[in-house]
Amino acid sequence: MTEGIQRVAINTGGGDAPGLNAVIRAAVISGLRRGWEMVGIRDGYNGVLAPDRYPDGGVIPLDRESVRGITHLGGTILGTTNKGNPLAFPVRREDGTVEIVDRSDEIVRSLEEQGIDALIAIGGDGSLGIANVLAQKGVRVIGVPKTIDNDLEETVVTFGYDSAVAFATECIDRLHTTAEAHDRVMVVEVMGRYAGWIAVGAGVAATADAILIPEIPYDLEPVAEKIMARERAGREFSIVVVAEGAHERDGSRSVVEKEAGRAERLGGIGERVAEGLVEMTGKDTRVVNLGHLLRGGGPTARDRLLALRFGAAAIQGLARGCEGCMVALDPPDVRYVPLSRATRRIKTVPLDSDLMGTARELGICFGD
Amino acid sequence: MTEGIQRVAINTGGGDAPGLNAVIRAAVISGLRRGWEMVGIRDGYNGVLAPDRYPDGGVIPLDRESVRGITHLGGTILGTTNKGNPLAFPVRREDGTVEIVDRSDEIVRSLEEQGIDALIAIGGDGSLGIANVLAQKGVRVIGVPKTIDNDLEETVVTFGYDSAVAFATECIDRLHTTAEAHDRVMVVEVMGRYAGWIAVGAGVAATADAILIPEIPYDLEPVAEKIMARERAGREFSIVVVAEGAHERDGSRSVVEKEAGRAERLGGIGERVAEGLVEMTGKDTRVVNLGHLLRGGGPTARDRLLALRFGAAAIQGLARGCEGCMVALDPPDVRYVPLSRATRRIKTVPLDSDLMGTARELGICFGD
Amino acid sequence: MTEGIQRVAINTGGGDAPGLNAVIRAAVISGLRRGWEMVGIRDGYNGVLAPDRYPDGGVIPLDRESVRGITHLGGTILGTTNKGNPLAFPVRREDGTVEIVDRSDEIVRSLEEQGIDALIAIGGDGSLGIANVLAQKGVRVIGVPKTIDNDLEETVVTFGYDSAVAFATECIDRLHTTAEAHDRVMVVEVMGRYAGWIAVGAGVAATADAILIPEIPYDLEPVAEKIMARERAGREFSIVVVAEGAHERDGSRSVVEKEAGRAERLGGIGERVAEGLVEMTGKDTRVVNLGHLLRGGGPTARDRLLALRFGAAAIQGLARGCEGCMVALDPPDVRYVPLSRATRRIKTVPLDSDLMGTARELGICFGD
Amino acid sequence: MTEGIQRVAINTGGGDAPGLNAVIRAAVISGLRRGWEMVGIRDGYNGVLAPDRYPDGGVIPLDRESVRGITHLGGTILGTTNKGNPLAFPVRREDGTVEIVDRSDEIVRSLEEQGIDALIAIGGDGSLGIANVLAQKGVRVIGVPKTIDNDLEETVVTFGYDSAVAFATECIDRLHTTAEAHDRVMVVEVMGRYAGWIAVGAGVAATADAILIPEIPYDLEPVAEKIMARERAGREFSIVVVAEGAHERDGSRSVVEKEAGRAERLGGIGERVAEGLVEMTGKDTRVVNLGHLLRGGGPTARDRLLALRFGAAAIQGLARGCEGCMVALDPPDVRYVPLSRATRRIKTVPLDSDLMGTARELGICFGD
Repeated sequence: MTEGIQRVAINTGGGDAPGLNAVIRAAVISGLRRGWEMVGIRDGYNGVLAPDRYPDGGVIPLDRESVRGITHLGGTILGTTNKGNPLAFPVRREDGTVEIVDRSDEIVRSLEEQGIDALIAIGGDGSLGIANVLAQKGVRVIGVPKTIDNDLEETVVTFGYDSAVAFATECIDRLHTTAEAHDRVMVVEVMGRYAGWIAVGAGVAATADAILIPEIPYDLEPVAEKIMARERAGREFSIVVVAEGAHERDGSRSVVEKEAGRAERLGGIGERVAEGLVEMTGKDTRVVNLGHLLRGGGPTARDRLLALRFGAAAIQGLARGCEGCMVALDPPDVRYVPLSRATRRIKTVPLDSDLMGTARELGICFGD
Repeated sequence: MTEGIQRVAINTGGGDAPGLNAVIRAAVISGLRRGWEMVGIRDGYNGVLAPDRYPDGGVIPLDRESVRGITHLGGTILGTTNKGNPLAFPVRREDGTVEIVDRSDEIVRSLEEQGIDALIAIGGDGSLGIANVLAQKGVRVIGVPKTIDNDLEETVVTFGYDSAVAFATECIDRLHTTAEAHDRVMVVEVMGRYAGWIAVGAGVAATADAILIPEIPYDLEPVAEKIMARERAGREFSIVVVAEGAHERDGSRSVVEKEAGRAERLGGIGERVAEGLVEMTGKDTRVVNLGHLLRGGGPTARDRLLALRFGAAAIQGLARGCEGCMVALDPPDVRYVPLSRATRRIKTVPLDSDLMGTARELGICFGD
Repeated sequence: MTEGIQRVAINTGGGDAPGLNAVIRAAVISGLRRGWEMVGIRDGYNGVLAPDRYPDGGVIPLDRESVRGITHLGGTILGTTNKGNPLAFPVRREDGTVEIVDRSDEIVRSLEEQGIDALIAIGGDGSLGIANVLAQKGVRVIGVPKTIDNDLEETVVTFGYDSAVAFATECIDRLHTTAEAHDRVMVVEVMGRYAGWIAVGAGVAATADAILIPEIPYDLEPVAEKIMARERAGREFSIVVVAEGAHERDGSRSVVEKEAGRAERLGGIGERVAEGLVEMTGKDTRVVNLGHLLRGGGPTARDRLLALRFGAAAIQGLARGCEGCMVALDPPDVRYVPLSRATRRIKTVPLDSDLMGTARELGICFGD
Repeated sequence: MTEGIQRVAINTGGGDAPGLNAVIRAAVISGLRRGWEMVGIRDGYNGVLAPDRYPDGGVIPLDRESVRGITHLGGTILGTTNKGNPLAFPVRREDGTVEIVDRSDEIVRSLEEQGIDALIAIGGDGSLGIANVLAQKGVRVIGVPKTIDNDLEETVVTFGYDSAVAFATECIDRLHTTAEAHDRVMVVEVMGRYAGWIAVGAGVAATADAILIPEIPYDLEPVAEKIMARERAGREFSIVVVAEGAHERDGSRSVVEKEAGRAERLGGIGERVAEGLVEMTGKDTRVVNLGHLLRGGGPTARDRLLALRFGAAAIQGLARGCEGCMVALDPPDVRYVPLSRATRRIKTVPLDSDLMGTARELGICFGD
C-alpha cells in the first residue's frame, strides 16, 4: 500500500497554534522509523513555490536532530507564513494590474520535482482546503487539523484549544482582582470567530458573570441587569467574556464580519459591548483583548499529547494507504475523515450540552 | 421526586486533589438556586462523628459568600482529613485495647439529627465505598469521584488528573536541561498505584525515554539498552518515568505493595529502578519523586470545568431523584452510575490504545 | 515610645497590586506578636467614613485566622476601592450642586472614636499623600508604598513591580511566536505613566526590538528603520513595547495625559504608535494592551518577600516610635523616610544606567 | 587596550542554571557589534581538550542566528558537561593506573592554536578557579559567576537564584494543600550546600513553619515544639524547609559532607530531619527533595535581565582592557572584581539581616 513512499514532506499553514512543533516531531520520528526520508516545506507552500527565496532551500531535511527538544516550544520550526493563498494568489503583472492565479498545479509539479511522494499538511480550514485540491490533483496528502478555536466538526477537539483556554483562564483570573479593586466591569474579548468554545471554556473556568458567543445572538439588557443585580448584592465588579464573533440579536452582523481588519485592530466587538454596558449601567468599564496572546506560547501537556498523536497518526495513515484524508480525534481513537468533508461544517457549542447546562446552573448570563 | 429535600450536605474525603473546591462551589450554587439549604461537613465524616471537636460546629452553612473565589484554589474549604475509616474505625478502650468499629450507623443517625436530607460525597474509592454503605442504609447520597490517578473505570476521566499531568510535565521539562547538563539518568517517580495514566500522560508529553507502569511488568534490560543506545548516539542523558505501582516482571510485587509506608518515604520503586540502572549502565543516576507535588496546587482550566460540571450534576441528579449513584463523565455528557458499581474495577491504560501506540511510535521504552 | 499603642489599623488604597495581602499578613502577625490588637479598615478610608455601608462594620478585627493562606493571593482582603479622594471628596448637596470637601478631619475623628492608636496606610502616591495629611493632623501613621510602576524615588523598588514584569515578559514571549508566524509588528502597551520601568524590564527580558518610554520622547523614524532593517535581514516580524506614558519628541504630550479616560479605553498610545508604524512600514501591525492584566494576579516569590518585609517593617517602625514616615527598601535594609518626602519625586529609569546600557548593547531601539 | 581582540570564545562550566543562554546571547550580540568574531567552546573545556570528540568541532561559530530565541530557554546551547576537572584530570595509563594531571597548559595552547584572543568563562566556583589559573598563565579571561545557591560573596546576587526561589516557592505552595489535607509534616529539601539563601527565600515566601540552614546549626527540639504548638492551635500540618547543607548543632557535620554522593541520592539531610521529627512528634511526615528540579528550566524575567547584563558586561569589560576578573552585581551597577578574589569567601545569609528579621517576626523557627 505504501509502495513508492520514500520521501515525505510536512508543512504548516495558516496562523500560529500551540502544538505545531509537537506534530512535526511525532511525524518525523514515526516516518524515520519506517525508513522514509522526511523533509519540511518552509512557510506554508512558499518553500516549493518560491524556493529561491531561501538561501538554504525551501525544502529542508528533517532528521532526529532537527526535531529535538521542540515538543514544548510554541511556533513552528517550518514557518507558517503564507505569502498568499496558493489557490487565489495575487500576482502583479508588468502593466501594474494584479491577477488572481491558482497556483495549485505549480505546487503539484514542484512536489514531483522534489521527489516528494506524500505530504502531511498541518493547517486550518484554508490549508485543509488547499490540501483537498492537491489530493484531487493526485497528491498523496494527509491533513492535520489546526485551530485554537476548536470549531471543526469532524474532530472532537483540536490541539491549541486547551492551551488557549488555559491562558485565557489565567488572564481572567488576574482581571478578577483588579476588577474587584476598582469596582469595574471588565469586558474580555477572546478568539472564536464562528464558535464560542474558548469563550465558554475560559469563561466558565474563570467564573465570568456573562459570556457572549456567536451561537447566541445577544441582547445587552440581561447582561446589564446581571451586572446591576450583582452590584445590589454588594459585588460591584463583573467580568464579561466576549467571543470575537459574537453579535447582537437585532439581526446586525458581528463587528468582525462587517468591518474586518480595522475592527480587529480597534478591539472590535469588545469595544461595542463595553460602550453599550457603560450606557446602560454607568459603570467604569474596560476592555481587554486577549486575541493575539492566545495563539502564541507553548502547548499544555494535553495539547502536546494530542499533537503528538496527530503527528504519529498522519504517518500511520500514510503507511496504511490512507490519503486525501484528515486525522481526527474520536476518543479514545484517532480516525481518518475525507478531506472533502473535513471543513464542511463549523462545530459550534451545542446549546443543550452539559457544559452549557453547567454554565446556566452557575448563573452565567448569555445575553438571552 | 425531590420532595423532602430541604437541606443538602457536602463532604470531601480521602486525599487532596485539584478541583475539590470547584465541585463544592458548583454544588452550592446549583443547590441554592433550587431553594435548598446547603451545608458542609468538616473533615470527611468527622464533622458529624465528632462535632464537638469544632468550636463553630462540625457542619457549617454554605452560602454564596462561602464559595466565592474558590474555584481556582487547591485543597478544600471543608477539610479532607479522615481521622480513621468510619467503616473500620479504631477506638481505644479503657483497658488499652483497640477495637475496630463500624460507625456508619452513627453517621446515618447524625445526618438525620442534623436534618440533612441528602449527601454529596466527594472522594476516592474509600469514600465512595462508605457512600455506598450509607446509601444501602437509606441515606440519599450522590458520589463525586476524586482521584488524580484517573483509575476509576466508570468515568472517562476524573478531575485532578489533568492538573497532575500538567505539573509533572513541567517538572520533567525542567529535569531535561539538568539531566543533559550533567550527562545523567533521571528517574522520575510519579503517582499511579494501580494504573499508569499519569506516568504515560506526563512521560509522553515531556518526551521521556522510558516509562514504567503497573500495566506492564518491567524488565530493566531494555531500559538500560535504550539508555546506552542514546549514549552511543551522543545523547548522554535519559529520562525514565516510573509510576509508583510499577513492578518487575519476575513476579515480585511492587515495592509499594510490599513495603507500604516505609517504601513511600524512601522513594520506593524509583530508588529500586535507579539502583538497577546504575548497576547496568554505570551512569550517574538520580531519583526525583514528584509524588506529593502532584496532589496539591490549584486545578487547570480543564479540571475546573470538569469539577464544576460534576458539582452541578450532583445537584441535578438529586433533583431528578437519582440516589445511591455516582456522577461520571461519558463525553460529552455526565451520567449517573450506581455507587455499588462505582469502584468495582480499576481502569488501567489499555495497551492497544492510540495513546500507547503513539508512545511506541516515538520510541519510548516500556521495559518490555 | 510605643506607649499608648494598643490598637493598630491597616488600610489599602488606590489600585490593585500583587503583594497587598502579604503586607497585611506580615503586619498583622508582627503586631499580634507585640500584643497589639490589629484591625483592618475596609475599602481605603471608606470603612471609617461610611461604616454604615458595611453590615459587619467598616473596621474589622484581624487575627491570625484572618490572614491565613493569603500571602500568595492577588487583590486585598480589605478592599481597595476608593469612593472618592477623602481630601477632595465630591458631596452632592440638596440643591443638586456638588461640593468638593476635605474629609480628613472626619477620618481623624473616626479613627479616634474607634480607639485606633496607629495606622498603617498601604497605597500609591495618592494614598501616601492622604497619610501625610493625617500625620500632620496628629495621626500616628506609617505608609507602605505600593505601585507596580516602580516610580517612587525614595525606595529602590516596590512590590508588584516584579510580578508585573514577570507577567508582561510571559505575554511578550507568547506574542513572539504569533508575530513571527504572521510576519507582523506587535505593539505591546504596558503600564508606566511617568516612568518606563515595566517597559524596559519586560522589553529587555523578552527581547523586544524597540521600547518607547516616557523618559525618552520618541521619534518613530528610527523605530520604523529598525523594523525594516530586520525585514531585510529575513526577520519579518518585530516587537515594539510602549509604556502608556510614552510621547512623541515633537513636544506634544502623551495621549494619556491629553485624553485621559477615553484614551485608555481605546488603547491609547499603543494605537497611535501602531498607526504611525503602519504608515511608515506598510506592515501588518497589531496592538496588544497588557495594562489591566499587569495589576492583577498573585505576587512572585520576590514580591512576596518584599511585601512581607514591608509589612513587618511597618510594625517595627511603630514599635520604635517612628511615625509620619514611609517604609522604603535600601538594600539590603528597610529604612524609614518622612511621608512629606515620600512622593516628592518620580523615579525614572536613569538613561546612563547599566540596565539601559545593556539594552543598547542588545541593539534595542528607543526611538531616539 | 582591546588591541588584538579579534576572536572571543565563550564556555559554560559546572552544573545547569537558568540564564546561561541569556548570558551567551548578550555576549555574542555585544561582541559582534564590536566587530569581533564570537565562538563557543563545547562542554566546558572539553571542546578544546578533546575537539575530535565533536564531528562539527569542539569550537563552534556563534553568530546572531545561533543565539536567536534562546534567552528564555533553560540549559546552555554550548553544553556544560565537564568530563573531569582540567586542573586535576584523571588519566588512565596503559598499566591501568590512574594519574591526576593538570591540563591547564593544554587549554592555553589549544586556545592559542584556535586563534582565540579572549575567553568568557561562565561557571561556578570550580570554573572560576580554572579561569583564574588560565588568567595567571596569560589568557585574557573574564569570568561570569553562575550559582543558583547565590553564595558568592563578591556579587550581590547571581542569575538562576531568582528562578530557583520562584519554583521552590511554587512547589511549597502546592505542598501546603496536600500537607493540610493529610495532617502531615512536609520536609522540603532544597539546594544550598554552604548557604541558606534558597531555603530562606522560598521558605519565607511560601510561609514555611521552620527553615533549617547551614548558617544556623539546628536543634530539632524547637522545631518539634513549633509543630506541636501548631497542632494544639488546630493547625495539624507543618512545612519544614531544609537546605541540603544544614547540620545539627551537636557538632556533627552535615550528611552532605559526610556521605557525599550516596546521601544525595537518598535524600540526605531531609530524611534525617524527617526521622527525627517522626520520633519527636509521632506525626505522619514526608520528605520532598526539590534539588534537581531547581537547577533546570527557563529563567524568570529577573534572571534573564541579570544574565543579559552579565553577558554584555563581560564584553564591555574586555573592550575596556579588563581581564583576569569576574563581572559582579553591585546594584545598580555591574563591576569587575579580580578572579583571584572571586571565590575566596562564601556569602552566607547574614543572621542580622532584615530578611532574617522578617522571618523571625513571622514566627518561623530556625531550630535555634
